[in-house]
Amino acid sequence: MKRKITLKQIAKELDVSISTVSKALSNSKEISEDTTQKIQAFAKLYHYKPNNIALSLKNRKTKTIGILIPEIVHHFFSTVIRGIERVANRRGYNVIVGLSNESFTKEIINMEMLANGSIDGFILSISKETLLKQDYHHFNATINQGMPIVMFDRVVNEVDCDKVIVDDFNGAVKAVKKLVENECKNIALITTMDYVSVGRLRTQGYLEALQNSGIVADSNLILKIDDSLDVENNLEVLETEIAHFFKSNPNIDGVFAVNELYAVSAMKVARKLGFKIPDDMQFIGFTDGVLSKHATPSLTTVSQHGQKIGEQSANLLIDRLEAEDAETEQYFTNNEKKRDFIKMVIETEIIERESTK
Amino acid sequence: MKRKITLKQIAKELDVSISTVSKALSNSKEISEDTTQKIQAFAKLYHYKPNNIALSLKNRKTKTIGILIPEIVHHFFSTVIRGIERVANRRGYNVIVGLSNESFTKEIINMEMLANGSIDGFILSISKETLLKQDYHHFNATINQGMPIVMFDRVVNEVDCDKVIVDDFNGAVKAVKKLVENECKNIALITTMDYVSVGRLRTQGYLEALQNSGIVADSNLILKIDDSLDVENNLEVLETEIAHFFKSNPNIDGVFAVNELYAVSAMKVARKLGFKIPDDMQFIGFTDGVLSKHATPSLTTVSQHGQKIGEQSANLLIDRLEAEDAETEQYFTNNEKKRDFIKMVIETEIIERESTK
Repeated sequence: MKRKITLKQIAKELDVSISTVSKALSNSKEISEDTTQKIQAFAKLYHYKPNNIALSLKNRKTKTIGILIPEIVHHFFSTVIRGIERVANRRGYNVIVGLSNESFTKEIINMEMLANGSIDGFILSISKETLLKQDYHHFNATINQGMPIVMFDRVVNEVDCDKVIVDDFNGAVKAVKKLVENECKNIALITTMDYVSVGRLRTQGYLEALQNSGIVADSNLILKIDDSLDVENNLEVLETEIAHFFKSNPNIDGVFAVNELYAVSAMKVARKLGFKIPDDMQFIGFTDGVLSKHATPSLTTVSQHGQKIGEQSANLLIDRLEAEDAETEQYFTNNEKKRDFIKMVIETEIIERESTK
Repeated sequence: MKRKITLKQIAKELDVSISTVSKALSNSKEISEDTTQKIQAFAKLYHYKPNNIALSLKNRKTKTIGILIPEIVHHFFSTVIRGIERVANRRGYNVIVGLSNESFTKEIINMEMLANGSIDGFILSISKETLLKQDYHHFNATINQGMPIVMFDRVVNEVDCDKVIVDDFNGAVKAVKKLVENECKNIALITTMDYVSVGRLRTQGYLEALQNSGIVADSNLILKIDDSLDVENNLEVLETEIAHFFKSNPNIDGVFAVNELYAVSAMKVARKLGFKIPDDMQFIGFTDGVLSKHATPSLTTVSQHGQKIGEQSANLLIDRLEAEDAETEQYFTNNEKKRDFIKMVIETEIIERESTK
């Protein structure tokens, strides 16, 4: 069994980027005809084959699902993987995990490696760099070659596939509404400068909930943290920023934070400044991770149901794979037999703990 | 490219376990001659090939490292993966992650899948079930077929390979010594009933440190938590047990816990019972995860340096892979040229925070 040449090797030999090779092989119009011809000729010479192997016949199924996530040290992604695994194991599938490390190129390399006969389909969440570049050709090429993809959490309209998303907007609305009902008058938002849609949607939910309650949003009460800062290792910087924010706005009596690290850090700062929680200040975070549960006081939070997201994603993918099997067996080949793509929205839920009244 | 038959398929066809197939194919004496012959004949008929493809020639290298870990929702394993990735990326390798879910059979299936031409070598930590069964034939078979393995954290003497371990014993000794120096007179241990060597070594370290300080160990001061209990989702049970333990032993003034969840839960219980930390009771945990950092008070802990473990493991594996390349190039084939296996011990370190004086 001779291993085929990889995208990376072609890119190196021809001194172009991996992304260029990837685009040329999928006939993207972004690449000049000359370059496309050169790359395709080289690929042909070295027997490069796109990823449509192992899919046409049922007995070539690998019964393995490829998961591709942006990072591993992240409670949300871990719980999604746990959910995928649970369903996959029950339905006779194995899983394998690739990591993009938020890099566009690593995402392409990992997809190529996994699609190379190792897996039947992908469950993935898009890397930040890919979202910034808005370049999704590798997803579309994979789908066109016959390998199904289910996207979760970080999804885009530009790719036609099954999607499972968290209702970030309504989660934020619920959280802020709860603070309003608990008689908070000056509700602060601690958020990111993120271009990832998640942070933006949560911010929009905050603004919407205030408006619905007849409260005029005050831009002084919105703290945007630079998320290129590695806060995990720069907690002091984060805490200093929050302390400054609280001191400049002593009227704050409610805080909604778009992730649990910001929420827990803000509670710590508030306590140090002498505020009583929840009497003087109430807090709600987003993501129900270990920090929320074990914080002092424990944190009221918007749960994203990561495990459920994983379970639904796995069911969508396996349903589609097995529908394809059934078609093959019955000699149905027209695409119209396939079901339309589904966008599943997982409702969030407020988990009440000690940080709210 | 025809996909070869898998262990799982052979097992299903012949109605035997995956482990039996795996053992028969590696000529284990545990399997009867009849069964071995039957399985080997079947495997041959369907062109089953063991995992020694892609290793003999340099241009068949995949430049990918397979990581196999027991579970993903675990800060320690995540940080190890981060360390492996960091070195792998720097040295031009990609990583792919398989999960055994603490299951012996899943460990075998994942190893077969990954070793099937996708990777150059393994970095792995053994599943609990495998440790209980003490059955390591799949590791030895993989190594014998020419694919190198580096084991970390959960390792065994029965497999000859490079290993990277945490100095659990001395980590525990240091922690308890610190409590003694801080004038604790009645030091409790909160540990698991674990057969995984890690828990045992930390318990031994506790006993050793007491003895060195001339303190007679009191079995009433040792609380063993049933680790088959899913404590993440049964925090109340854990807290009730600890509360009972503290009430029965009101003289406890220092606590060493073998993981951070036990330590943080114990602090919570102690505070609820009215103890002041660190004035009345001091606490040291093991593993420097997010909980330790964000607990109130923050937790003094024994850091295992997960990232460093990952980095060293990746360096050991890549060094060995590249030494093999060099040998191939220079037409040296005798095994004596290879370096001996290395067992690297990563020293632990006490990170002092607010839970000790």
